[in-house]
Amino acid sequence: MGLFSKDIKTFDDLFLHTLQDIYYAENQITKALPTMIEKATDPQLKQGFQTHLRETEGQIKRLEQVFKMLGQSVQGTNCPAIDGIIEESEEIAGEVADKSVLDAALIAAAQAVEHYEITRYGTLVAWAKQLGRSDAANLLQQNLNEEEATDKKLTAMAESKVNARAA
Amino acid sequence: MGLFSKDIKTFDDLFLHTLQDIYYAENQITKALPTMIEKATDPQLKQGFQTHLRETEGQIKRLEQVFKMLGQSVQGTNCPAIDGIIEESEEIAGEVADKSVLDAALIAAAQAVEHYEITRYGTLVAWAKQLGRSDAANLLQQNLNEEEATDKKLTAMAESKVNARAA
Repeated sequence: MGLFSKDIKTFDDLFLHTLQDIYYAENQITKALPTMIEKATDPQLKQGFQTHLRETEGQIKRLEQVFKMLGQSVQGTNCPAIDGIIEESEEIAGEVADKSVLDAALIAAAQAVEHYEITRYGTLVAWAKQLGRSDAANLLQQNLNEEEATDKKLTAMAESKVNARAA
Repeated sequence: MGLFSKDIKTFDDLFLHTLQDIYYAENQITKALPTMIEKATDPQLKQGFQTHLRETEGQIKRLEQVFKMLGQSVQGTNCPAIDGIIEESEEIAGEVADKSVLDAALIAAAQAVEHYEITRYGTLVAWAKQLGRSDAANLLQQNLNEEEATDKKLTAMAESKVNARAA
């Protein structure tokens, strides 16, 4: 695992690989969010994406703390999943002409990103606990809580006004 | 949208595009599951993947009913998100040597797939209701319920034994 081999031999290796995966994903998300902020029309949605960009920067710092706690160097690993999710989000955003419909599409795209993060952090928290690293689990749980809260906010925005406006 | 243009002009178009996206995704999942069944070591996990394969086939039939309800032809559309999620799942499965660690990795990979489906079905149910298509919403909700139940079963299997064995 890491510098000299691609093989994942132990549960520790698998944990580290998945940590590197979400670290890469969070960094890609900070690159994708500015376009989503720019494309959003609803002011609350635009503001929500801005808030989430700052939050994501904080999550990256927490991940860096986890790497350090484990005595590992901070690095990402190729993550085709987030690449695909972001590619799909950009494709769909490029295909929607109407601004209200675009807001609904942007929320759906952002929720796909959130759900990817929720599943990875859920896994990492469980694995960190299993490995007896409650210090790492606590930091990862904070990221998980933020992603779940963001997902709920997006659902509320969609259901309270954005979907109705799009329809 | 569809045959003559790539543009998504209305909320109906966006709904149909997302329906085609999940239809493609479910079909890709039926192609990926046999490998996961083969690679899983824990008998309950293997059985769980087999059950989910049959469930996925039923979900595809429900999606076909939704296309028909809407007077649309049954078709998928390119979905880079699920392609990326499945690619990552195959990569990680190919990198893990130890069977117990592999079971933990397979559960994490399957949960990433489930979460993609949960977010898409969640969106589609909300959009179908907004469009006044409670008939379509009901079928999509059935798929959503199954995905959520599968995700919970996977968490239970991981936390009750698979993670401990991997560690």
